[in-house]
Amino acid sequence: MTLFRHDIAVAAARIAPWVRHTPLLRLAAGELGLGFPLTLKLELLQHAGSFKPRGAFNRILSAREAGALPAAGVIAASGGNHGAAVAFAARALGLAAEIFVPKVTSAAKRARIEGFGARLICTGATYFEAFEASRARQAETGAMDVHAYDHPAVLAGQGTTAREFELDAPELTHVLVATGGGGLIGGMAGWYAGSAAVISVESVGCPTLHDALAAGRPVEAPVGGIAADSLGARQVGQLMFPLARDFVAEAVLVEDAAIRAAQRLLWERLRLVAEPGGAAALSALLSGAWVPPAGARVGVLVCGSNCDPATVAG
Amino acid sequence: MTLFRHDIAVAAARIAPWVRHTPLLRLAAGELGLGFPLTLKLELLQHAGSFKPRGAFNRILSAREAGALPAAGVIAASGGNHGAAVAFAARALGLAAEIFVPKVTSAAKRARIEGFGARLICTGATYFEAFEASRARQAETGAMDVHAYDHPAVLAGQGTTAREFELDAPELTHVLVATGGGGLIGGMAGWYAGSAAVISVESVGCPTLHDALAAGRPVEAPVGGIAADSLGARQVGQLMFPLARDFVAEAVLVEDAAIRAAQRLLWERLRLVAEPGGAAALSALLSGAWVPPAGARVGVLVCGSNCDPATVAG
Repeated sequence: MTLFRHDIAVAAARIAPWVRHTPLLRLAAGELGLGFPLTLKLELLQHAGSFKPRGAFNRILSAREAGALPAAGVIAASGGNHGAAVAFAARALGLAAEIFVPKVTSAAKRARIEGFGARLICTGATYFEAFEASRARQAETGAMDVHAYDHPAVLAGQGTTAREFELDAPELTHVLVATGGGGLIGGMAGWYAGSAAVISVESVGCPTLHDALAAGRPVEAPVGGIAADSLGARQVGQLMFPLARDFVAEAVLVEDAAIRAAQRLLWERLRLVAEPGGAAALSALLSGAWVPPAGARVGVLVCGSNCDPATVAG
Repeated sequence: MTLFRHDIAVAAARIAPWVRHTPLLRLAAGELGLGFPLTLKLELLQHAGSFKPRGAFNRILSAREAGALPAAGVIAASGGNHGAAVAFAARALGLAAEIFVPKVTSAAKRARIEGFGARLICTGATYFEAFEASRARQAETGAMDVHAYDHPAVLAGQGTTAREFELDAPELTHVLVATGGGGLIGGMAGWYAGSAAVISVESVGCPTLHDALAAGRPVEAPVGGIAADSLGARQVGQLMFPLARDFVAEAVLVEDAAIRAAQRLLWERLRLVAEPGGAAALSALLSGAWVPPAGARVGVLVCGSNCDPATVAG
C-alpha cells in the first residue's frame, strides 16, 4: 500500500494546477439533527461539479508525460460526471473529446458535457451499454480511452480526495463515501489503508460494491433508482476490489427516499445543492442506515452537484 | 479602533458556539475569466443562509449576559435575511420573536422566517416602512429590538466575518463586500482598519453607501432593483458611517444585469447558489466595475443564499 499512497502523492502534485483543493465545512453536534459533530468535504465545488476531474486529469496528464497521447484525443463513457470531467480536462489541455452517456443521464449532465465543447453521444440504457459503444468507437478512432474508474491513474487521481481530506481533517476516524464503479472509494480506501474506517454508501437500486463484497469478487448488480446516473456502474472495477476488500470497513445501502431527504436538508440547512449520488453518503447518517460508534470523528464526502437545482428545494 | 477590534474579538468568542466558521474557496488565476487568483469566503453557508446570525447572536447574547432580555422576547425589521437570523437565534435561545418584513421580501425569505418559528408580519413597500411598523409594535410589547445594522453589538458581530477572513487568508490586500444598511461592511472595515482595502459594492438601484460617502453623511437613497430585499436599507447606519468614511477604500456600483450574470456564473462554475445581494460583490470584479491594482490579493465575501435556486440556473 505504500506504493499506492506514493502514486496518490505523485498524482496530487501532477494535478494540483488543474483541480481545486475543496474546502471543509465543520458542523457542530446537534446540526442536521445528529448528536455528534460532522466534517463535510465540499467536493461538489470541484471543477465540473464533482470529484471526477481528479482522476481524469491524472490519467490524461500521465499519458501526456509518457508521450502517449494520440492525435485523436480522448474518449470516455460515463453516467455523466466523468464525461463532464473528461470534457473539462480535454478543453483545458487542448484535446478533442468524445463522450458516450446512456439515456438515463440527466439533461443537466448532458448540457455540461456539451458546454465544455466535447462531442456527446447518448446511447444505451445504462452506463455499461454506453461503455460498450465507446469501445467500438475507440477501435475506429484510436483515441485514448479514459476509463471512468478501472484504471490505475484514475484510481490514484480519485485517491487525492482522501489525501486532502486527511491533511485538512487528520482527526477523522470514519469517512463515508458514495460508491458507483468504485474509483473514488477505491482510491480513498487505498490512501487511508485502515488509518480511518472508510464506509461505502450505495442506493438500494445500485448495490454494486455491497454485492461484490458479499460475493467475494466483482459481480453484476442491478442499476436503478434516483442515483443511477452517478452510482449505476453495474459492476465495480477489478482494480478497486482488492482495496475495498482490505480497507472498506462496511458497505451500507440507503433508500431513494433517504437520499432525497438528504438533498433537501443539504439545501435547507447548508445551502448546498447536491445531486442524489452526492447526497447519498450523508443520507446514511441522517436515515440511521449507518450509526457511528461512540467517540467516532465522522467525515462525509459530498461528491457531486450536477443536477437541476430546482429539484432540491421544497 | 483598537477598542472596536477588541469588541469584535469578544463577539467572536461569544457567538462561536452558535455560528459556523465558514470555509474559503480559493480560485486560481484564469477561473471565472479573471486574470488573477481569487479567494471567496463562503458566508452563504452560514446558518439561516447569510452572515446575519453573527450580529443577531451577538446582540441577543450580550443582552442576556447583562440580564436585559425582556420576557416578551425579541422583535426585528428586516429585508428578510436579518429576520431569518433573528428567528433562528431566538429559536436556538428559547425566545419568542416577531419579524417585520416589507412586501418586496421574497417568498423564500418569508418561508425561512416562518420555518424558524417566528411570527411574521409583512407590511410596507420597503425595509424602512417595515421598520417603522416594528417600532410601533415594540412600544406595545416591550420586546427587545434587534436592529438590522445600527447597533454596536450588531456591528461587532458582523465584524467577526472579517476576523475569520483575515485569520484564514492573511495575505489579502483587497476585500470586496456588498453593502445594504452597512452593518456588515462597517464591522469588517472596522476590523481591517486599513490593513486591507475594503471595497463596498452596491447595486445602482440601492446606492446607499455610495451616496452617503459622496454627501459626507448618511443620506436617503433610492431602493430598487433585484437586490432590494437585501441591499435596500434606504440609508446607512449612523454607527457605521465613521468606519466607512475612514476605512472603506471605494464604493462601487453594479448593474442588475451584472449581478444576475454573477449569480449564473457562481452556479455554472462553482455550484454555489447566491442570492442577488450575495453575488453583488463578485459581480463588481466580473463586470469590470472594479479592477484590482497589479499585485493585489483579492478576497470576496459571498454573503447570502436565500433565494429560489431555480433562479440561478440557465
